Amino acid sequence: MEKARKIPVLEVFGPTIQGEGMVIGQKTMFVRTAGCDYQCSWCDSAFTWDGSAKDEIKQMTAEEIWNELKEIGDNRFNHVTISGGNPALLSSIGSLINLLHEKGIEVAVETQGSIWKNWFLDIDQLTLSPKPPSSGMETNFEKLDEIFHRLKQNSNFGKEVSLKVVVFDEEDFQYARDVHTRYPEVSFFLQVGNSDIEHEASTKDLLEKLEWLVNKVVESPEMNHARVLPQLHTLIWGNKRGV
Amino acid sequence: MEKARKIPVLEVFGPTIQGEGMVIGQKTMFVRTAGCDYQCSWCDSAFTWDGSAKDEIKQMTAEEIWNELKEIGDNRFNHVTISGGNPALLSSIGSLINLLHEKGIEVAVETQGSIWKNWFLDIDQLTLSPKPPSSGMETNFEKLDEIFHRLKQNSNFGKEVSLKVVVFDEEDFQYARDVHTRYPEVSFFLQVGNSDIEHEASTKDLLEKLEWLVNKVVESPEMNHARVLPQLHTLIWGNKRGV
Ligand code: SF4
Ligand code: SF4
Repeated sequence: MEKARKIPVLEVFGPTIQGEGMVIGQKTMFVRTAGCDYQCSWCDSAFTWDGSAKDEIKQMTAEEIWNELKEIGDNRFNHVTISGGNPALLSSIGSLINLLHEKGIEVAVETQGSIWKNWFLDIDQLTLSPKPPSSGMETNFEKLDEIFHRLKQNSNFGKEVSLKVVVFDEEDFQYARDVHTRYPEVSFFLQVGNSDIEHEASTKDLLEKLEWLVNKVVESPEMNHARVLPQLHTLIWGNKRGV
Repeated sequence: MEKARKIPVLEVFGPTIQGEGMVIGQKTMFVRTAGCDYQCSWCDSAFTWDGSAKDEIKQMTAEEIWNELKEIGDNRFNHVTISGGNPALLSSIGSLINLLHEKGIEVAVETQGSIWKNWFLDIDQLTLSPKPPSSGMETNFEKLDEIFHRLKQNSNFGKEVSLKVVVFDEEDFQYARDVHTRYPEVSFFLQVGNSDIEHEASTKDLLEKLEWLVNKVVESPEMNHARVLPQLHTLIWGNKRGV
C-alpha cells in the first residue's frame, strides 16, 4: 500500500454554498489547501501563501480530512470543493479525491491552470481560472493549451470543465475575450472582480460592477456563449473567511 | 407546407443575461409569450395573463419573431429564452424552436409543468418550475410525473432539464423538499422569492432572504444536491420590465 501522503490544509468548512462559477449555488464543503505558485495583486486568499497563516497549516492525510469533513458536515453534504491557493501544486490531492469518491461525494476543484496533475481527470467539476492582467501575473498559454489537450482525451470534457476569468477592468475584459476565443468549446464564465479584500465589500459597488460587466458582454458578439456571474458569498457575507 | 401558425408575443428583448436557474448568467434574448393557466399570487409577469397588457400582444409567426430578434440582437446573441406566462399553452412554439435551431441558436424554456408539449424534447435547457403553496396554486403531481416520464425517454434527460422552486417561506421550503425528494435524479434549483413586485425590490431584503434560504438548505440533509440562487436581474435592475 502506498504510504499515506499528507496534504497541507488551511481550512475545512461548511456546508455552505459555492458562491461562484460553474456550480454556483451548489451546497458544498470546502477544503482549502496551502500554497500558491502565483501572487495575484488582489488575491482574496493571500493567507494561503503569504505566510500570515502559516501556523494554521495542518499536514493531513486524506483520511484525516474526511474525518474532519464528517465531524463538521455530518450527513449534510455530498459535494466537496477543494480550493487554494493552488491545489494543483499537490500530487497528494489524488488520494483525497479517491477517498471522497469512494464515499459517494462529488468533488470540484479550482486552479489557475499553470500546472497539470493527473487527478484533474477524476474531478467532477474542474474550473480553470487563468489570471487577467490586473492580477500582475502572466498566463503561460502553452501550459494551458497542454492542459486542455490532456483533458480532451477524457470523455467528460466539455461538460464538467469550465474556464473562469475574473474581470476588474477593460484590459481584463480583452484578456477574457482572448481566452474565450482561444478555447471556444469550453464553458466560459466571467466573474466580477472584488478588490475590496480588506473591508466589507459594498453591495452597491459589487452590483454596479456586475451591471458594467453584463453590459460589456451584451455589447460583444464574441461573448455570445459567455456566462456572467457575481460571487454570491461576497454579496451575502462580504469577505469573511469560513462561510 | 404547414400553414404558419401564430404565437401570441408580449415582449422580445435583449441581449441581456438570464438572471436565474440552470443557465444563470448566460447571455440570452427573451421572447415572452402571452397567456397562463395559473394565477400565482406573486406572479412577476401578471401582465402576460391579467389583461393589463392585452393591447401589446402581437400575433407573430416564427419567422416574424426571428426577424425581430435579429433586428434588436443583431449578431450579439446565440441563445434565446422563451418565457411566459406559460409557453406550454402554445403548440406553435414548436415552429419557433425549429427555426431557431436552424439558425444555430440554443433555446431555453421555463414552464410550471402543468401541461406537456412534444416540443419539450427539443429544448436545450428546459426548466420545470412547479409553484409552491404561497402562490395559491395547487400542483398536479400526476401531470408532473407524466412529464418526467416522457422526458426520460429522451437521451438528454438529466443534463438539460431542471426543476426550480421559488421559496418565500417555511411552507414553500417543505414543498420544495417534497418535490426534490420525488424527483431525486433531476437537477434541483431553489430560488429566493421576490414579493415586492410593485416597487423596486430592496437589495438588502433580497440578500437577507437569500441568506435565510442558504441556511435552510445547509441544515437540511435532504437538500445536499440542491443549488440555491437569487434572481440576478432583480439584484441588478429591480423589477423593471425589458432588461
Ligand atoms: S492564483 Fe488564486 S490563490 Fe494564487 S495568488 Fe492568485 S488569486 Fe491567490
Ligand atoms: S405560472 Fe408563472 S406566469 Fe403563470 S401566474 Fe404563475 S408565476 Fe405567473
